[in-house]
Amino acid sequence: MKPALTPLPDPPRLLLGPGPSTMPPEIAAALSSPLVGHLDPLFLKIMDETQSLLRDLFRTSNRLTIPMSATGSGGMETCLVNLVEQGDRVVVGACGAFGARIAEGARRLGAEVFVVDAPWGTPVDPARFIAEIGARRPALAALVHAETSTGVLQPLDGIPEAARRADALLMVDCVTSLGGVPVDADGWPADALFSGSQKCLSCPPGLSPATFGERALAKIRARKTPVTSWYFDLSMLEKYWGTDRVYHHTAPISMVVALREGLALAFEEGLEARFARHARHRDALVAGVSALGLGLLVAPEHRLPMLTSVRVPDGVDDGAVRRRLLAAHAIEIGGGLGPLAGKVWRIGLMGHSSRPENVLRALSALGECLQEAGFRCDPREAAAAAEPLLRH
Amino acid sequence: MKPALTPLPDPPRLLLGPGPSTMPPEIAAALSSPLVGHLDPLFLKIMDETQSLLRDLFRTSNRLTIPMSATGSGGMETCLVNLVEQGDRVVVGACGAFGARIAEGARRLGAEVFVVDAPWGTPVDPARFIAEIGARRPALAALVHAETSTGVLQPLDGIPEAARRADALLMVDCVTSLGGVPVDADGWPADALFSGSQKCLSCPPGLSPATFGERALAKIRARKTPVTSWYFDLSMLEKYWGTDRVYHHTAPISMVVALREGLALAFEEGLEARFARHARHRDALVAGVSALGLGLLVAPEHRLPMLTSVRVPDGVDDGAVRRRLLAAHAIEIGGGLGPLAGKVWRIGLMGHSSRPENVLRALSALGECLQEAGFRCDPREAAAAAEPLLRH
Repeated sequence: MKPALTPLPDPPRLLLGPGPSTMPPEIAAALSSPLVGHLDPLFLKIMDETQSLLRDLFRTSNRLTIPMSATGSGGMETCLVNLVEQGDRVVVGACGAFGARIAEGARRLGAEVFVVDAPWGTPVDPARFIAEIGARRPALAALVHAETSTGVLQPLDGIPEAARRADALLMVDCVTSLGGVPVDADGWPADALFSGSQKCLSCPPGLSPATFGERALAKIRARKTPVTSWYFDLSMLEKYWGTDRVYHHTAPISMVVALREGLALAFEEGLEARFARHARHRDALVAGVSALGLGLLVAPEHRLPMLTSVRVPDGVDDGAVRRRLLAAHAIEIGGGLGPLAGKVWRIGLMGHSSRPENVLRALSALGECLQEAGFRCDPREAAAAAEPLLRH
Repeated sequence: MKPALTPLPDPPRLLLGPGPSTMPPEIAAALSSPLVGHLDPLFLKIMDETQSLLRDLFRTSNRLTIPMSATGSGGMETCLVNLVEQGDRVVVGACGAFGARIAEGARRLGAEVFVVDAPWGTPVDPARFIAEIGARRPALAALVHAETSTGVLQPLDGIPEAARRADALLMVDCVTSLGGVPVDADGWPADALFSGSQKCLSCPPGLSPATFGERALAKIRARKTPVTSWYFDLSMLEKYWGTDRVYHHTAPISMVVALREGLALAFEEGLEARFARHARHRDALVAGVSALGLGLLVAPEHRLPMLTSVRVPDGVDDGAVRRRLLAAHAIEIGGGLGPLAGKVWRIGLMGHSSRPENVLRALSALGECLQEAGFRCDPREAAAAAEPLLRH
């Protein structure tokens, strides 16, 4: 007898949290296609096409541009284990959970870590970060382009140039930004970038698109010690994804096929149109939640287009509202992490989730839940504030 | 305009190589279900059910039984980075590519590695392995239950007891064995076991089911140095998968839903019936390839039920036959690795791929390709030899 399994939700969840986002039907279809072997000549073509599309998305000519067989955190680990050796200095910008995670990852590898921090909800000050790079002359400088724990877009003003001057590699966490705002690996320039499949690309979580430039590869070749990780060792991975096709590990085939489809959909829309769509829907959401009487965590100039942190009003129970949104409206939004737990909601409009009808549905449902929680607001006003901004 | 993508093969491939195996429709449907968030209460239930089914499959009561968010090689890495510290002694049994990989992974972590090897195509001699454990008194002893590079089933005779006597942890690579032959974590007993989703469970590659007993957890708690890997750190993962539900990384949601379905299908069939099916179809395949006039790499008592290594006859071009099988018959089989490259074919009958009609289709297609390559054989004789053994 087949074991009883809890059924999946019906209707399905509308995913408006910090990721994953809702998967479009084209990606679901690609995901469940019959498998081809990971060494099949046809799969090698699929790998090539995926790499080529990823290069266009990262705006890079980096040969070593691949989806790592792990989630975004595995992409972070790939950068660190390959680019950091024991005793190396690493300067990390941290204004949220994911910057702090980079610092912790580097410390585990025996690096001497210098953190340039900033209050959660603001970006790292580029001038302070640049000064720290100049003072410490680290092997690696790392920061988070889109801080998913707060909704802040990090300005890079002058940071790439400062890293080059100090002969430091620059690593950028683009987990939430890639596909939703411009990421410009060669233009910035940055040496190591990683992302996640489940944010603005609306694929399931499980892959971490990543790219590594020549300066990063030179550091890897000049390492004094072997990379401690076998799984994330780029010198072996580049032989599998490169022309040699040396078997390393079995690629997550279905996930790669799904990612290729997600990338093709992004280019079908056009990157500029996609970036504009994310910004437009964020603006409408901000207008709507403001009309509900809610405050925003992040100053306008630093707000992410794909993730908005809204302050939980005094006297309203964060968890109760989110549970009600899920149970009565089938909508998932995110809560706060760390110092922001209970204090903010994180509303994501990422990839396929960033649609006009979802903005309106979120505002209507959130307004209703707030009213039920005793907070006075008018969901119709929120819709009226958002609607004009949704017109394209 | 949408970028042109190479279409997936039509008809789909029949995957009869060393993994992945062909995915059944129930798993494909689960895989492409609408996403639920990784912190959704419903997904937490899915995690619980997956863990419970995995415990039954590993035959263990280990609390820490989880699918690692990586392929089988990531499961190997999880065991090593958590259980090995710099300077530790590690005894590794190696009679193929995957034993050698464990040794390499342990060396990267600064372990002193002692390899007990055996010719490819034979198992490691348990007596020699036991003697080495006694002589070296290692922190960890590791070996491969089903060596995917050769098709050998490793006898464990006395090894678990010897590891306990020497106060060594025992790690077993069950990537290809789990779900196709009995794996008995608590009965052997072994302290750390890992597998892969794409072999006898017929899920897509991308998850590594793994289980860790109390002795392994005690070693982790007593570590002198932090685990160098953030991504694979079990002390954090056990808080996410345990009752605390502390967010660590975003689980590969779709893959976990697919794995849960694959596990439920295995228990619907029944483990004993499933093991018997794998053995029965292997016997039929062996009878068939023998009737074609082909030799087998592995002695009968050490042959895996899910993977059979067949010798490439003299004068026949390994690669040409495999390419022809793929192009004309849509069948994938595996080639040899390392010293066996060009010398064996690896024919997998794993999970959903292990079906009577696939045995006959493989024999017929292989016979035809051999004839085309100038090798004299009679595919009808192969079918006649196999058919009686396929009757259940």
